[in-house]
Amino acid sequence: MSLSAHAHAPELTLRDIREAHERIRPFVHRTPVLTSSALDTLTGARLYFKCENLQKAGAFKARGAHNAVFALSEEEARRGVVTHSSGNHGAAVALAARSRGIPAFVVMPSTAAEVKKRAVARYGAQVTLCEPTLESREGTAARITTETGAHFVHPYNDLRVIAGQGTSALELLEDVPELEAILCPVGGGGQLSGIAIAAKGIAPAIRVIGAEPAAADDAARSFRAGRIIPAGNPHTIADGLRSSLGELTFPLIRAHVDDIAIASEAAIIGAMRLVWEIMKIVIEPSAAVPVAVLLDRVLPLTDRRVGVILSGGNVDLDRLPF
Amino acid sequence: MSLSAHAHAPELTLRDIREAHERIRPFVHRTPVLTSSALDTLTGARLYFKCENLQKAGAFKARGAHNAVFALSEEEARRGVVTHSSGNHGAAVALAARSRGIPAFVVMPSTAAEVKKRAVARYGAQVTLCEPTLESREGTAARITTETGAHFVHPYNDLRVIAGQGTSALELLEDVPELEAILCPVGGGGQLSGIAIAAKGIAPAIRVIGAEPAAADDAARSFRAGRIIPAGNPHTIADGLRSSLGELTFPLIRAHVDDIAIASEAAIIGAMRLVWEIMKIVIEPSAAVPVAVLLDRVLPLTDRRVGVILSGGNVDLDRLPF
Repeated sequence: MSLSAHAHAPELTLRDIREAHERIRPFVHRTPVLTSSALDTLTGARLYFKCENLQKAGAFKARGAHNAVFALSEEEARRGVVTHSSGNHGAAVALAARSRGIPAFVVMPSTAAEVKKRAVARYGAQVTLCEPTLESREGTAARITTETGAHFVHPYNDLRVIAGQGTSALELLEDVPELEAILCPVGGGGQLSGIAIAAKGIAPAIRVIGAEPAAADDAARSFRAGRIIPAGNPHTIADGLRSSLGELTFPLIRAHVDDIAIASEAAIIGAMRLVWEIMKIVIEPSAAVPVAVLLDRVLPLTDRRVGVILSGGNVDLDRLPF
Repeated sequence: MSLSAHAHAPELTLRDIREAHERIRPFVHRTPVLTSSALDTLTGARLYFKCENLQKAGAFKARGAHNAVFALSEEEARRGVVTHSSGNHGAAVALAARSRGIPAFVVMPSTAAEVKKRAVARYGAQVTLCEPTLESREGTAARITTETGAHFVHPYNDLRVIAGQGTSALELLEDVPELEAILCPVGGGGQLSGIAIAAKGIAPAIRVIGAEPAAADDAARSFRAGRIIPAGNPHTIADGLRSSLGELTFPLIRAHVDDIAIASEAAIIGAMRLVWEIMKIVIEPSAAVPVAVLLDRVLPLTDRRVGVILSGGNVDLDRLPF
């Protein structure tokens, strides 16, 4: 696993993802795959939902964080890990550090939801609040890294994190080997690139498609333009998908992903509610994006067996969008 | 499978439940069993949640309805099935009839939630509205039975329905053979008695405990009094648990169930919200009752492996109690 020349995709293979799976397996859930004949009827496809909303700490992020934390040497791990996050990645790193019994330092914007601050603290991490800007987050994390010697775990631009996120595709294809496509939300691109590498490594003919809010379509535009177009400061309810693609994830997505589709805010909210009502599971807006794309029926997936990554379920129940 | 003398428990055995399982297996979900370390910590037990909220039509009722419908002879089935229900059982019978390709007639009180009327109609049943009284429901169903020759499927006082409801315990004990107790909501008692027969048939030492709203504690009082004490018209948010025990379910519960515990309305609502937040699944108030009992820590289940039946997930998202 190494980063090759700048313009090419970094070397990350199915083998790395299988190793990640062995490494994290004792610490994360093997999440169930659910089906719904009602949603099959509504989308015209045959859907297999990989329920990462039922993952530890409520999101797929637990996979990448555990792989990053457990891949550290004893020497590296001893001084702990640090990250900055307003959401699921912070909780995942805190949980992974607790799993390994090492310190975790999580920088969170002062504006982060109280419920998320509490979740991170409950996993035993030391929370440092900062200003709600990327500069303040990065600066605060850098200072903590210097002071403590802790290892920085990026939410997506890290090959170990990407390898960890790809492990859900191994389980999904083990449960449903005949899949013809996988839809997965894309924000920073860690999960989408990991899943694409895993899925194509196992089944080269499978189509892997990203799903993104139209209001934060930087990944779709970057994919078509052939260069990273930053997200800016997008306003979308899908709070997990506001990041820009990274130096590592962008070339991996170009190399392994077939398409990126978009969905409107109204379609995302409608799909979220529909999944709650029909499937009886709590998904966050980010996880509803691929469902919204499928309900739109713009992709040629009629009668196809399609895996859908329901990426997380962390929602403030006092502030539902419907 | 036959009803013996009045005062004794009807003959229903593990074998009947295994036969029911074979019969319904192609038509219902094998629901996942989930765990939550956070809820283990909060309850002091080791919990295994059998997610019947993820069952077809959103509740365990699909099991009993399919067994009742598919156990009919061709001759009996041809004229269809009839039932009365304001909720999950009506949808389950409609679905089971559709699975077999026979007509379903569902009598619903005019006051039933629109979302439930639509669900029943969506499964292709013919809905007949009646006054919101038990007399009107029973009278209307009896009239339809006479007119159509359809077979009446009682929501719980029917040995085939009871056998079907017990099948979730077969799956649960297959997945977690070392269980020491099972907690299950009790309304009319069909699910509780089916599960008790199945579980004790497989593992005689296992404890099977009913969970009931304190505001509708007729089963707990009947259990202690040794005779059926009718529920009257109880006011509880757990709308699936307002029924009285039946002539068949009461003696089965006396014979096979160890205890019935109760929970307050506030505890039920709190437990429901906690499960949504922590486990990311939608459960209805009735399903939260055993969780509320466990959070109360009144039962001697510390460190025990406990199966918890999350019986259903049909909730009106526009009218959440929290």
